[in-house]
Amino acid sequence: MKVITFGELMLRLAPEGYLRFVQADRFAATFGGAEANVAVSLAQFGVDAAFVSKLPPHEIGQLAVNSLRRYGVDTSYILRGGARVGVYYVEKGASQRASKVVYDRAGSSVATASRNEFDWQKILAGADWFHFTGITPALSDELAAACLDACRACRAAGITVSCDPNYRKNLWSLEKAGSTLRELMPYVDVLIANEGQAADLFGIRATGSGTPGVGKPDPESCAQVAAALAQEFGCRQVALTMRTSRTASDNDWSAMLYSGGKSYFAREYPVHIVDRVGGGDGFCAGLIYALREGFAAQEAIEFATAAACLKHAVEGDYNLVSVEEVRALAGGDGSGRVQR
Amino acid sequence: MKVITFGELMLRLAPEGYLRFVQADRFAATFGGAEANVAVSLAQFGVDAAFVSKLPPHEIGQLAVNSLRRYGVDTSYILRGGARVGVYYVEKGASQRASKVVYDRAGSSVATASRNEFDWQKILAGADWFHFTGITPALSDELAAACLDACRACRAAGITVSCDPNYRKNLWSLEKAGSTLRELMPYVDVLIANEGQAADLFGIRATGSGTPGVGKPDPESCAQVAAALAQEFGCRQVALTMRTSRTASDNDWSAMLYSGGKSYFAREYPVHIVDRVGGGDGFCAGLIYALREGFAAQEAIEFATAAACLKHAVEGDYNLVSVEEVRALAGGDGSGRVQR
Amino acid sequence: MKVITFGELMLRLAPEGYLRFVQADRFAATFGGAEANVAVSLAQFGVDAAFVSKLPPHEIGQLAVNSLRRYGVDTSYILRGGARVGVYYVEKGASQRASKVVYDRAGSSVATASRNEFDWQKILAGADWFHFTGITPALSDELAAACLDACRACRAAGITVSCDPNYRKNLWSLEKAGSTLRELMPYVDVLIANEGQAADLFGIRATGSGTPGVGKPDPESCAQVAAALAQEFGCRQVALTMRTSRTASDNDWSAMLYSGGKSYFAREYPVHIVDRVGGGDGFCAGLIYALREGFAAQEAIEFATAAACLKHAVEGDYNLVSVEEVRALAGGDGSGRVQR
Amino acid sequence: MKVITFGELMLRLAPEGYLRFVQADRFAATFGGAEANVAVSLAQFGVDAAFVSKLPPHEIGQLAVNSLRRYGVDTSYILRGGARVGVYYVEKGASQRASKVVYDRAGSSVATASRNEFDWQKILAGADWFHFTGITPALSDELAAACLDACRACRAAGITVSCDPNYRKNLWSLEKAGSTLRELMPYVDVLIANEGQAADLFGIRATGSGTPGVGKPDPESCAQVAAALAQEFGCRQVALTMRTSRTASDNDWSAMLYSGGKSYFAREYPVHIVDRVGGGDGFCAGLIYALREGFAAQEAIEFATAAACLKHAVEGDYNLVSVEEVRALAGGDGSGRVQR
Amino acid sequence: MKVITFGELMLRLAPEGYLRFVQADRFAATFGGAEANVAVSLAQFGVDAAFVSKLPPHEIGQLAVNSLRRYGVDTSYILRGGARVGVYYVEKGASQRASKVVYDRAGSSVATASRNEFDWQKILAGADWFHFTGITPALSDELAAACLDACRACRAAGITVSCDPNYRKNLWSLEKAGSTLRELMPYVDVLIANEGQAADLFGIRATGSGTPGVGKPDPESCAQVAAALAQEFGCRQVALTMRTSRTASDNDWSAMLYSGGKSYFAREYPVHIVDRVGGGDGFCAGLIYALREGFAAQEAIEFATAAACLKHAVEGDYNLVSVEEVRALAGGDGSGRVQR
Amino acid sequence: MKVITFGELMLRLAPEGYLRFVQADRFAATFGGAEANVAVSLAQFGVDAAFVSKLPPHEIGQLAVNSLRRYGVDTSYILRGGARVGVYYVEKGASQRASKVVYDRAGSSVATASRNEFDWQKILAGADWFHFTGITPALSDELAAACLDACRACRAAGITVSCDPNYRKNLWSLEKAGSTLRELMPYVDVLIANEGQAADLFGIRATGSGTPGVGKPDPESCAQVAAALAQEFGCRQVALTMRTSRTASDNDWSAMLYSGGKSYFAREYPVHIVDRVGGGDGFCAGLIYALREGFAAQEAIEFATAAACLKHAVEGDYNLVSVEEVRALAGGDGSGRVQR
Repeated sequence: MKVITFGELMLRLAPEGYLRFVQADRFAATFGGAEANVAVSLAQFGVDAAFVSKLPPHEIGQLAVNSLRRYGVDTSYILRGGARVGVYYVEKGASQRASKVVYDRAGSSVATASRNEFDWQKILAGADWFHFTGITPALSDELAAACLDACRACRAAGITVSCDPNYRKNLWSLEKAGSTLRELMPYVDVLIANEGQAADLFGIRATGSGTPGVGKPDPESCAQVAAALAQEFGCRQVALTMRTSRTASDNDWSAMLYSGGKSYFAREYPVHIVDRVGGGDGFCAGLIYALREGFAAQEAIEFATAAACLKHAVEGDYNLVSVEEVRALAGGDGSGRVQR
Repeated sequence: MKVITFGELMLRLAPEGYLRFVQADRFAATFGGAEANVAVSLAQFGVDAAFVSKLPPHEIGQLAVNSLRRYGVDTSYILRGGARVGVYYVEKGASQRASKVVYDRAGSSVATASRNEFDWQKILAGADWFHFTGITPALSDELAAACLDACRACRAAGITVSCDPNYRKNLWSLEKAGSTLRELMPYVDVLIANEGQAADLFGIRATGSGTPGVGKPDPESCAQVAAALAQEFGCRQVALTMRTSRTASDNDWSAMLYSGGKSYFAREYPVHIVDRVGGGDGFCAGLIYALREGFAAQEAIEFATAAACLKHAVEGDYNLVSVEEVRALAGGDGSGRVQR
Repeated sequence: MKVITFGELMLRLAPEGYLRFVQADRFAATFGGAEANVAVSLAQFGVDAAFVSKLPPHEIGQLAVNSLRRYGVDTSYILRGGARVGVYYVEKGASQRASKVVYDRAGSSVATASRNEFDWQKILAGADWFHFTGITPALSDELAAACLDACRACRAAGITVSCDPNYRKNLWSLEKAGSTLRELMPYVDVLIANEGQAADLFGIRATGSGTPGVGKPDPESCAQVAAALAQEFGCRQVALTMRTSRTASDNDWSAMLYSGGKSYFAREYPVHIVDRVGGGDGFCAGLIYALREGFAAQEAIEFATAAACLKHAVEGDYNLVSVEEVRALAGGDGSGRVQR
Repeated sequence: MKVITFGELMLRLAPEGYLRFVQADRFAATFGGAEANVAVSLAQFGVDAAFVSKLPPHEIGQLAVNSLRRYGVDTSYILRGGARVGVYYVEKGASQRASKVVYDRAGSSVATASRNEFDWQKILAGADWFHFTGITPALSDELAAACLDACRACRAAGITVSCDPNYRKNLWSLEKAGSTLRELMPYVDVLIANEGQAADLFGIRATGSGTPGVGKPDPESCAQVAAALAQEFGCRQVALTMRTSRTASDNDWSAMLYSGGKSYFAREYPVHIVDRVGGGDGFCAGLIYALREGFAAQEAIEFATAAACLKHAVEGDYNLVSVEEVRALAGGDGSGRVQR
Repeated sequence: MKVITFGELMLRLAPEGYLRFVQADRFAATFGGAEANVAVSLAQFGVDAAFVSKLPPHEIGQLAVNSLRRYGVDTSYILRGGARVGVYYVEKGASQRASKVVYDRAGSSVATASRNEFDWQKILAGADWFHFTGITPALSDELAAACLDACRACRAAGITVSCDPNYRKNLWSLEKAGSTLRELMPYVDVLIANEGQAADLFGIRATGSGTPGVGKPDPESCAQVAAALAQEFGCRQVALTMRTSRTASDNDWSAMLYSGGKSYFAREYPVHIVDRVGGGDGFCAGLIYALREGFAAQEAIEFATAAACLKHAVEGDYNLVSVEEVRALAGGDGSGRVQR
Repeated sequence: MKVITFGELMLRLAPEGYLRFVQADRFAATFGGAEANVAVSLAQFGVDAAFVSKLPPHEIGQLAVNSLRRYGVDTSYILRGGARVGVYYVEKGASQRASKVVYDRAGSSVATASRNEFDWQKILAGADWFHFTGITPALSDELAAACLDACRACRAAGITVSCDPNYRKNLWSLEKAGSTLRELMPYVDVLIANEGQAADLFGIRATGSGTPGVGKPDPESCAQVAAALAQEFGCRQVALTMRTSRTASDNDWSAMLYSGGKSYFAREYPVHIVDRVGGGDGFCAGLIYALREGFAAQEAIEFATAAACLKHAVEGDYNLVSVEEVRALAGGDGSGRVQR
């Protein structure tokens, strides 16, 4: 049985170290994209994971495909065609200087793909889980329709669907995102979000709390919001990530899972950041792994939170950590002692 | 008095050394574009050169602007707006393995600019030379119109116009290129081309020669073609470059100038290639410099040819060589002895 | 209206990452110098800034000039001549290991320039602010005289003068520095220093405090010292930086401004250091910007302190941050969240 | 139908550029090995290729596996176990300075594997071609036995076997190599060697020629030797490579194929060397591709020779070129003109 | 008078920055090994230090020798022969992600050397101190015998012997390590260990404490353990290091010395880690230096602890810090202020 | 018995690959200087070689010392003091673009040393050969005097003296060089020069030849010049290098030796240049080695010429090649075949 994720894979161009964009004269060239990141992380966990997308037939498209093959992701459902690989530029922040991302993704092969290029019957054969984020339907109306097609096919085939709304303001308005995602939510079994997105996209807020998404997340508020999301959309499980950004170098990181009517909170990790991008995707992969493996709720949220914690210490979008490493951390060893 | 060039400036991403695209995990990030290359080369010659274009307001756009400021090009006429910096990927060939270029330039700020964003009265004030290549009108109908506007303004103001047709098959068809360029040619005082382009774009061929653009260029054919071009379009001077590609590592390079009814041939250089891209632009800059300085025809073509020869030994698009270096080579010293 | 800064620009050679000098086999090659750093920072803020100096005509001198042009500094007043570009080697410290700087600046073009090479009438035309640091007069008696010339020309023309004493023990003795600077101080409108320098150079100390410059700066002492400096030299404003070095990796950073008889204290930032060099210059540039823009005293010191705080997160001497970034931090957002 | 290759994959450590070993403080880390190189090259040609070997379960073993997955090689038959990844250090020569290889491969996982770990029935299912080189049986008696097992299984299943004797003096003596290979030869359908190896290993020499393997290979001698090899071992086809080493930077490269009682000679290429290692493996892959595709003999040897020619212009062991690129060169275009 | 250390020197291969092994495509190539690290650190302190080992005659062996010569270590007693340089791969951890070491040292030249290749009479002539760690006898029975030979020769010649048990589970079992080391201990004058090793190897535990080696070391327990070790083995001095691993990025570091029947505790340093490997070796070198110089016990343990603290801020195995730097830190200046 | 060389060691800063100075943002940092280069090359040949100079006590001075220790040169006679390490910037040329060197060596520690800091009695004890070049006396009158002191001490002690005039126009005039060197020549046993220097410095020209130093050296002229030099200065042997610079990438290289009244010519090598600097020093070292080993004249000049040929294929100033490598080339194998 395998996991399918669907979205865009972009070339990620990053200046070396802590150089700013205007200082750059070379870029580290890796690849990333929310759903591809989830597939790669799952493959590191030993899961049979496939990524669905479209990439141009030229060498840069091939480089993108190879970045997934290298880490064991099944790329046989990636369509080849269209004109370009989307690009995103990322500048790593430090201390009080924030990280910056400049997107150059319009017109990419997948963003210009049409709904019926994706044969979901064939793609989903042998799958038991389908994951997408709000970025995919944001790329084009055709892709939003493709997401709906996929969700329906999953529902028909009894395949679990997970979704992270992952709102990107450069891609669509809150209004369009809210209405599009509301159409997809009924098919989503496992919803992964945070307090801010619940408020902004779906108008779901805890009573009496501060501004959602600002400052330290409040467990009580999160519990309320998760329960409300589960009720509103009929999700089996709702997970909320709980990040506190102290500076660009230091964050606190935790998460909770609402399952079976109860809220389970993971321990909180003080993280010294190597690469912040893809933390949420690492969380999604951890949660998918844990739930597919049948972990109990507390164990599942600890695993997913530890996986995402480790992501912050890995360069690039991909969370290249093993099940053993995640288990060790979730089991309490965050000492970072040398493993010989 | 200054020189104005008009076109697109792209981010140039190149794997290190001789690595192929599929081996790359970092890219050297420089900038280039035919007309910008000419401006940079002229600035190295001490000429007051300005580049006209449009670049996005974000940091990657700024990085592009800075790449020109660094080398002394006046960037005050570059509009800031639009969405993206065009990108081109270049893989350096060697021996029998050809260099490869993958363009990703559609939708760039300048390609989506409109004709009337460019205020030629203001831009051309104080200029005595205007240079563009066939790439600029190929980017969009609006830019083709902007080129025409610029040419007309030059004619009115007595500003010399030079053009290199620089045909790019990914941008437009030979038919569209031919018809668009034919409209612009009457304004061109100095035309810089090669035998292959003369044949393909304008149907001008030497009698009895082989396939133009294949194998060693024939001086006699070049003389015929240059004369025919001068006559057809009323150009004051026509220069043809004469390249023989032996392998990706070794070329022979020469050029000729038709001026005042006579053909002048430069010496031929065997070049060991460091970076092949921008050789033609280095030639244009050399010729513009020489003609503006009032060099005699033979001296002018020797200078331009030597300038382009040196470009093949400089990394990146920009021909970062001085007048003294060009003069030394044109004057006969190609020994490459260490200058202490 | 523009800002003029005057001093030396040096080649800065730094081993990669945290390598020590004796481990180096390549050096990052950037440029820096207190006054040039201020000019670059101001140019990033959109200010018309020019740097005055002297650099050799050879390619290394050109590389230095280009490092300024790239970031938009006006280099047209830089004289070209003399023999060498001063060099400084910097090794980045971490944790308890201190950063190290080895200077090799004797005999540089500017240090061997003579007073009358600088035509202040011409240079200062169109300027409303002149900035120098104590390093410039320390380089030679001729440059000290040139500083005096510049200061007098500013006084005559109503141009504001700012100065950071910036004592360097390798360049001159405390005695010589004190006497030379005392001659210049009467022309200084805005003095930027710290408690240690006030004590060492001018013998101005707060009553009953500990050793100035050691441990956590005391606000009360700073207020006293600033007031005393303002009174002694008749400065319009006096700013003192307040740094606490916990380790080479972590500092606390704040500052205060004495203006109109009152002391204004900025918030204190815990900084995780990327590059410590140029922090004070970033502060000077922030203060000059704020005062030229007419910020109120509290707003001005918050802006300058935030600017310098951000400098600690930027590689190299130059503080490559925008007004928007400084304002965001001064306005309270130090969370370092990713800006997409 | 797929191609199976069997051998060792080593970590290849190379100083940057033309640095000598004693100058190195970093190594480019790629992977290579004669049979893996063939698999990678075939995968670039679109062939379904699998590589059989054994690698340790730790991360360096995984890095080796990933180097193959990245380029599309099926790694599902690679056993995981044993202690180490073999290493080879390579220093790139230039001009009269020869390239150097230092092997550190003893005790690698595959060299210490036992014969019966390889289940040839399962591995060869669905295959139509099996390739190995003399390096594999040289690694251990167990691997020699495994080669014999594989050959017998191929014979039984009608799978074509190709072999390149690839003698390495550090691994075994000429005597042991000769006797071991003689045992395997009867199963080899396609033999790929050169004049020197035919003489050294099998005592087969052309009449009246000079020292085999020294100086310019003589076509007549090659024809004699190939015919003798075919007769001696009953091979369907024998190919001989014909290299002339002028310097470490420049070689002449050609090859011939003896098939159906006739000798076919490819054109000779003057190659400017980027990376010399893996040239012969690139030839093997080219020949396997051509013969599997049913090319006529002349076409086949031209294709294989052109493939190997291109390998000399690709960094690393792997010949990352496409069928289209090989065809273009074999078809006569070695001009290296930029492909846009 | 000189110090002799005896052990293995390995090639250390590390991905750049914080990259994981599976992301690596180049490795920083330095050298390290516990005893060589001590020799290098001593040489930086101005001590005449020689390293005894065996390395292959090829260029990689030479590179290893050169890494020591570069830093002033006497390499004239290094035997040249055998087959390989041991390799170890190290991946730098960060935050909760632990550092990883993969050893590939079996079969190295020194591990396959025989006891009587080492002529201790000659080697120890002119020496007053001999240092080894438990790694050397772990490499082979022959080397264990060689250690015994060396210890006996030292006892006979009145040369001080120091030893750090340095247990490596990949090299030998606790049982074998315990019994082998017990045989050597009677010759050890200065023992350097930690609480965990005392318990695991020698069964020496403090009464009523927690698990030795886990969590924050307890001074009282350390005092007990050190006294017990001194009594058990008749050591003149016993030093115990006291590390608290908070994360892979942040540790607390201290140590104590038991001497003359009393325990001396150094101050504790919060260290922000640049490179964790070699910290213990830096401590050994610091202690050897201090004791040879005749420092009082408190001064000695402060010096050794400060030396090791600084090691955490130096890249690579070698602790490249001077006596002046260690003294400054031991004397209280951990502010990391820039040294100009 | 050992060889002593005396001169300056400079930090050599070179942009990466073929980048021009104005493109550089990092420099490879190695060290070089004519006499140090000779010492390093001799040490690679197994000769006991010491280098005499003066370097500052700071870390950059130490880095310079370490660059020699690493390659086995005895640095115990290097004085530590003075202010700076001389610097030279080198830009690698290619094809028709010449290499460039910018010197920044004035005021270096050795150039400001005084004559009596060098205790030649002590330095020359145990030496049988002393080598210097014309650069050393050019640095200062004090160093010229020190050279004279050294020469006289050699004559008294029967130590062979070799000298390469190595004229540098930036350091002194031809007149001053000629007169200073003429004073030293009577002590020189082995003179190493070229036709151009013989003419420019000493006015010694072959009859009827072209301009010395331009174009292809003529054997007959060289024989005449060498004989004349030997006669004029009473040298035992005179060697002349014979370089033909075709381009910056390709040179022809040969040399001759006049000894015992006869001229011996080495074979000529076509060299593809990796690094041109230090070729002459490689020749000197080769000749010193060969003559000290008692090679016959023809064998000696072949060895020295082959050594220098190989230098052109080694990065940096130092000729890091072994006796075996030189012998192989001198013996006729210039094929550059991979050495496994």
